[in-house]
Amino acid sequence: MRRAVCPGSFDPITNGHLDVVIRASRLFDEVVVAVLINKNKATLFTVEERIDLIREALRDHPSAPDNVIVDSSQGLVVDFCRSRGIQSIVKGLRAVSDFDYELQMAQMNNSLAGVETLFMSTNPQYAFLSSSLVKEVARYGGDVSGLVPDVVLKQLRDRA
Amino acid sequence: MRRAVCPGSFDPITNGHLDVVIRASRLFDEVVVAVLINKNKATLFTVEERIDLIREALRDHPSAPDNVIVDSSQGLVVDFCRSRGIQSIVKGLRAVSDFDYELQMAQMNNSLAGVETLFMSTNPQYAFLSSSLVKEVARYGGDVSGLVPDVVLKQLRDRA
Amino acid sequence: MRRAVCPGSFDPITNGHLDVVIRASRLFDEVVVAVLINKNKATLFTVEERIDLIREALRDHPSAPDNVIVDSSQGLVVDFCRSRGIQSIVKGLRAVSDFDYELQMAQMNNSLAGVETLFMSTNPQYAFLSSSLVKEVARYGGDVSGLVPDVVLKQLRDRA
Amino acid sequence: MRRAVCPGSFDPITNGHLDVVIRASRLFDEVVVAVLINKNKATLFTVEERIDLIREALRDHPSAPDNVIVDSSQGLVVDFCRSRGIQSIVKGLRAVSDFDYELQMAQMNNSLAGVETLFMSTNPQYAFLSSSLVKEVARYGGDVSGLVPDVVLKQLRDRA
Amino acid sequence: MRRAVCPGSFDPITNGHLDVVIRASRLFDEVVVAVLINKNKATLFTVEERIDLIREALRDHPSAPDNVIVDSSQGLVVDFCRSRGIQSIVKGLRAVSDFDYELQMAQMNNSLAGVETLFMSTNPQYAFLSSSLVKEVARYGGDVSGLVPDVVLKQLRDRA
Amino acid sequence: MRRAVCPGSFDPITNGHLDVVIRASRLFDEVVVAVLINKNKATLFTVEERIDLIREALRDHPSAPDNVIVDSSQGLVVDFCRSRGIQSIVKGLRAVSDFDYELQMAQMNNSLAGVETLFMSTNPQYAFLSSSLVKEVARYGGDVSGLVPDVVLKQLRDRA
Repeated sequence: MRRAVCPGSFDPITNGHLDVVIRASRLFDEVVVAVLINKNKATLFTVEERIDLIREALRDHPSAPDNVIVDSSQGLVVDFCRSRGIQSIVKGLRAVSDFDYELQMAQMNNSLAGVETLFMSTNPQYAFLSSSLVKEVARYGGDVSGLVPDVVLKQLRDRA
Repeated sequence: MRRAVCPGSFDPITNGHLDVVIRASRLFDEVVVAVLINKNKATLFTVEERIDLIREALRDHPSAPDNVIVDSSQGLVVDFCRSRGIQSIVKGLRAVSDFDYELQMAQMNNSLAGVETLFMSTNPQYAFLSSSLVKEVARYGGDVSGLVPDVVLKQLRDRA
Repeated sequence: MRRAVCPGSFDPITNGHLDVVIRASRLFDEVVVAVLINKNKATLFTVEERIDLIREALRDHPSAPDNVIVDSSQGLVVDFCRSRGIQSIVKGLRAVSDFDYELQMAQMNNSLAGVETLFMSTNPQYAFLSSSLVKEVARYGGDVSGLVPDVVLKQLRDRA
Repeated sequence: MRRAVCPGSFDPITNGHLDVVIRASRLFDEVVVAVLINKNKATLFTVEERIDLIREALRDHPSAPDNVIVDSSQGLVVDFCRSRGIQSIVKGLRAVSDFDYELQMAQMNNSLAGVETLFMSTNPQYAFLSSSLVKEVARYGGDVSGLVPDVVLKQLRDRA
Repeated sequence: MRRAVCPGSFDPITNGHLDVVIRASRLFDEVVVAVLINKNKATLFTVEERIDLIREALRDHPSAPDNVIVDSSQGLVVDFCRSRGIQSIVKGLRAVSDFDYELQMAQMNNSLAGVETLFMSTNPQYAFLSSSLVKEVARYGGDVSGLVPDVVLKQLRDRA
Repeated sequence: MRRAVCPGSFDPITNGHLDVVIRASRLFDEVVVAVLINKNKATLFTVEERIDLIREALRDHPSAPDNVIVDSSQGLVVDFCRSRGIQSIVKGLRAVSDFDYELQMAQMNNSLAGVETLFMSTNPQYAFLSSSLVKEVARYGGDVSGLVPDVVLKQLRDRA
C-alpha cells in the first residue's frame, strides 16, 4: 500500500494546501494530513480546531476524497512515518525560499530514516498564499474569500 | 494623476530607500512614502521620528523632489492605496530572498484590490544595505556614513 | 506625459505578455510594445507578423486599451526610449532565473541612459508560460489554447 | 497500479540519475525511464546506446529493481504518460536553476494533461553532477569514476 | 602571513562547519575560528562550551591541523579582523538563501573595513546541515551521529 | 607559497573581473589569471589579444600588482592547478544564477583533484557586468566606458 503524509502547521489550512492534498490523494492509496504540534510557536487555532477545519474543508470539496486521513503529530515527522508505514512525505513548493529550506529538511529526513520527500509544484493560482499572510490580511479586515476554504473563512471572520 | 506609494518600516530610512523614492518621484506625478505601523514589532525609532527623518533626508537631498509626501499607514497597504487614489506600489528589490516574499505580497495585493506593484532594481551601490544591518553595525560602533542620510547618521550616533 | 515601453521578442505574444501590457496600460499615459529585432536569432514569426499578432490580440482583448502602440526596435532599448521620450521600461517577472538576468539588464540600462525598469509580477496563472515553451508544445501537437491569444493559436495551428 | 516516469536525455545516465530512479522504484509499482528523443540536439550517445547503458547500469546496481522499464519517447512527455497510463512524472532537483525551469514544465504539463510532477531532492553526493559536466570532464581526460555507472565509465573512456 | 577567520555561532559546531575549517587550514597560514557572542540570542551551549567543543573536535579530527586557533569575538567581525591582522573571512555556502544574506554581509564588511570574504562551497554531504536543525532533531531524540563531531554528539545526548 | 588562479574566458576582461583579480592579489602570494581556451566557442578576441588586454589593464591600474601572472590554459582547470602548484581557484560571484553553476563546478573540481574554489562577492558597482553584455552594448554603439578598462574600450570602439 502506497502511503504519503502531508505535514504542516495548517494554522489554518488554505486553498493552496487543500489543492496539494487533493492532488496527492490521486497519486497514493492513502494520504495522511498531519498537523504538526510545535509547543514553542503560538498559533491562532488549536490543534483540534485545525484538524476539524481540514476535515470539513475536505468534506466540502468537490472531490471529497475518501482516502485522506487527518491526524496530529508530535516530534519528528520521520518517526510519524515509521509508526504508520508511510514511505513518502509530500510537500507543495511555492518559491525559491521554500525550496532551500525544504531541500535541507528532505535530505535530513532521508538521512535520518530513509523517508523520501516528494515535492509538488503549487497551483500557480495559490502561489502567493501562506497561512501567515492570510491571517495578517484577515486581521486587518481584508477579504480572503477564494484563498481559504469556506469553513476557514467563517472562522477567520468570527475572530477578526 | 499617476500616484505611487513606497511603503516600508523605514526604521530608519537608508540611502537605498532614498534612492528608490527619488527615482520613483521622476516616474510618477506624486509619490507617497508610507511608514507602515506594525504594533507587534519593536522599532528603534517611533513612527513620528521615522517620518521626520524621511522628510529631512528628502529636503537635504540634491534632488529635493517636491512631489513626494511622507505619511504613516495602519492596516493593509491596499486599503491605504484605495483611500488615497493610488494605483501603484513601488518597491526596491535587492536580492532573491526579497524577490520571493515581495512577489507573494504583490500577487496578494493585486488579488485583494487590483493594486499593482512595480519593482525597481536597487542601486547596486546600496544592494547590501538594510535597516537592520545598519542598526546592527551602528550598535557596535561601526561607521555607517555613506549608507544612511546625514540626519539618520546623527540620530544613530546619538543613540549608540 | 508618462510613457513606458514593454520590450521583447514576442515570438509569439502569449497571454502572459498580454496581461502585463494591459496592466501597464492602466498605469501609464502611453505604452509602447516594442518588438526587438535580433538578426542573430532565428524566429518562428517575422517582425511584421509579430507586430500584427500583438495588434490583433490587443484589439480582441476585453480591455482593448487605446493608449497602446505596437512598434519594432533595432539596437539598444535605451536608444529607443530616448528617441521616443520614454522614461520607463516595464517587464513581467516570472521566476528567479528571470530576475537575475533582468536585474543585470535593468542596471545596465540605468547606467547607460538613466532609463528606469519597472518589474511587474506575472499573473500566477501564466507564471509557467514562455514563448519558447508554447512553440515547443505546439510543434508536438499539444493544446495551447488558453495560453495564447486566439489569433496566435490559429497561426500556430496553421504552421504545426 | 501506481506508475511513474523518469524522463530525460540521459546522455549518458549519471549516478545522480540512477539514484533518483532507484529511489522512485521503491515508491511506485512501476517506474518507466524514458529517454527523450530531441532531433534538434546533438548527443554523444544514440538513443539505443543510452537505453542500453541505463539497462546495464540498473542490472549492475546492488538494488537491481525489477519494476523499472527503460524506453524512449518522442514528442510531449504528457502524451507518453497518457498512452502508458502513467500518473506521475518524477524528477530530481539539484539546484535553484533547475527548480525554476522544472516548475514551469511541471505547471505546463499539469495544465496540458493533468499529469503531476513529483520532485525528489538529489542525493547531496551527486548534487554537482550533470551529464554535460561529466562529458566535458571526460573529454579532457578527467577521472569521472564514482560519478557514473561503470558501464558508462567504460564507454566514455573508449570515446575519449 | 596569510590569516583567515571562520566566524559563526557554532551552537554547536557541526561536521559541515568542521569540514570548512579543515579545508581553510590548508589554504592559509593561520585560521582563527571565532565564536560570535550575541547577547540577544538564546543559545544551547555557553560561549566557553562552544569553544571547548570546537577545540576537542579539531583535536579528534584525522587532520588535527596545528594552525587553527579557537577564540570568541564580541562586536563587529571586521573589528576582530583588524585587531588580529586578519585579511580574509572564510564562510561555507550551502544554499541560495545563505548566499543572499552572506553576500550582503560580505559587501558590508568590505565597505566598512576592506576585509574580504571568501566563500567555500559546503561539502555536499553536509549541505543539509545546520546547527538549529541538528538541535531540533536531537531534542526529539533523532539520531544525529555522522552529522556532528563525537564530542558534540555526546553533549547533545546528555542534554536531550 | 599561497597561489591562486582566476580562470575565465575574459572576452574581454571587464572592470568587474579586474576588481576580483586586484583584490585576490592582496590575499595570495601569487595570482595567475588563466584565459581558458575553448575551441568550440566563437570569441571576439583571440587568446593572445585577451592575454595582452589583461596585462595592459593590470599595468594601467592604480594598484598595478606585481604578483599577478597572465597565461592561457587548455583542458581542465584542475590540471592547470596541479601543474602549477596552485591550491585555490578564485571566482567572483554576481548573482544566484552564477551561484548554482559555480557551486557545481567547485564541487566537481574538489571531487576531481582536491582543488578548492574560493568565491568573492563582486563589487556591487559591477554586479550587472558581463563580457557578453558589454559586447552586445558596444556592438550597438552604446557607451561602455567605466565598465571596461581603457585598453578594452579602445579595442571595442575600433571593432564596432
